[in-house]
Amino acid sequence: MVILEGHVHYDAFGGFHHVYANDNALAALKAGKFYPKGSVFVFELYEAVKANNAISEGTRKVIGVMEKDPDRFSVTAGWGFEDFKEADPNQRSVTNMQEQCMSCHETQKSSDYVYSTYQE
Amino acid sequence: MVILEGHVHYDAFGGFHHVYANDNALAALKAGKFYPKGSVFVFELYEAVKANNAISEGTRKVIGVMEKDPDRFSVTAGWGFEDFKEADPNQRSVTNMQEQCMSCHETQKSSDYVYSTYQE
Repeated sequence: MVILEGHVHYDAFGGFHHVYANDNALAALKAGKFYPKGSVFVFELYEAVKANNAISEGTRKVIGVMEKDPDRFSVTAGWGFEDFKEADPNQRSVTNMQEQCMSCHETQKSSDYVYSTYQE
Repeated sequence: MVILEGHVHYDAFGGFHHVYANDNALAALKAGKFYPKGSVFVFELYEAVKANNAISEGTRKVIGVMEKDPDRFSVTAGWGFEDFKEADPNQRSVTNMQEQCMSCHETQKSSDYVYSTYQE
């Protein structure tokens, strides 16, 4: 998907989204079930460059990771979050997972806090 | 990329593009070289559904294939083309490769008739 200007999450997530799931996450996503420990999503965000009635991918801005580990991340419903900014991948971006991540993701509680849906 | 309304190729290729390359095609694409026999690109076209300042993928409309085989496709610079429409994948769509495919692809002669470019 492409998040455009005017979207409520444009500042953080404007651009092209690519979402990757490991085996655990994919099985739960397909089955519509809750995610087991070890489920991982990786999310790439690319700049959206609009020209000549087309939107192309520009540079990659961020890689986001979402990992299910109820032991380590009990405060945030079992999910841990981190962002790796292309400009400075060694700098931690997420300092408060509840505030920066779960405050939005908790609207997706019925799908275990995951926004992505599976499409054949 | 997403081809939007108003684009010169909107009627045929409006929507989300996913392009896949086999090993031969990928090596040539990365190196910026001409494509050897056996190079294959597969192209998926998904409907672009716009809502709430985001564009999401709808249904898949077409799978396109482009194969380099100078023996079989000498008339069209060595490339063969076929489309498989989601609605009727057994129906051949391309009946005249020169007219339906090369008439546009020949604008990309300097990259061996390939529109795609490689991005790390």
